[in-house]
Amino acid sequence: MFNGVHHINFLVRDLMVAVERYRTVLGIDSFQYGELDGRGVRTARFRVGHTWLVLVQPTDPDSVPGRHLAEHGEGIFLLSLGVDSLETAVRDIKSQGGKFVSESPRKGLENWQLIDLDSAQFFDVQIQLCEE
Amino acid sequence: MFNGVHHINFLVRDLMVAVERYRTVLGIDSFQYGELDGRGVRTARFRVGHTWLVLVQPTDPDSVPGRHLAEHGEGIFLLSLGVDSLETAVRDIKSQGGKFVSESPRKGLENWQLIDLDSAQFFDVQIQLCEE
Repeated sequence: MFNGVHHINFLVRDLMVAVERYRTVLGIDSFQYGELDGRGVRTARFRVGHTWLVLVQPTDPDSVPGRHLAEHGEGIFLLSLGVDSLETAVRDIKSQGGKFVSESPRKGLENWQLIDLDSAQFFDVQIQLCEE
Repeated sequence: MFNGVHHINFLVRDLMVAVERYRTVLGIDSFQYGELDGRGVRTARFRVGHTWLVLVQPTDPDSVPGRHLAEHGEGIFLLSLGVDSLETAVRDIKSQGGKFVSESPRKGLENWQLIDLDSAQFFDVQIQLCEE
């Protein structure tokens, strides 16, 4: 069902401090920057193999990522698995008892179509599906 | 420096309950099982694209994963980035100010050679390097 790990989000308090650390210590020199006003975040992402690693700084404390940061602190936030068809994957997973946190997908960076599974079902791993 | 996301570890309290959930809800039907006595864990892993997702149940509460589970609960534990040469990567990262939690690599599943970076340096993301 999944074609790969599409992206992994890390919550950080200060995007530019984090970018500088990844740049200096790990030698990452190619970041792409983004903003998602509807989600209340700004982002910097870099590619590792076939996967994007996305540094995410909440800009709205009342957003989902903002509340997660306040509650749990910085760290890995979610794992987004690539699918060829979000519609098919959602239908299949629902028929297998899977629960989603919303009825319909939302738009991520670069028009990625995203939908989040209920993390309680996966032992506190926030799994998301992504169709590019 | 990195050739991909080699694996991602999820800490779970009960391996077989977790395997059954991933099998039923996400349709994952091909697990490989392992044990690492030195690390105090048993594991079940499945492949998503180029990445292993590894369910990890601590069997020793005094192990690093066991203590992490007791403190933080279930969820994503670490992100292991693939490198072609662990020796070169460690040398480069050290020269760039990177800190590791041990002096030398340890053996993971299937003779993966692993070394962990200091998570405090990466805003509570536990990054590991892995040479296969």
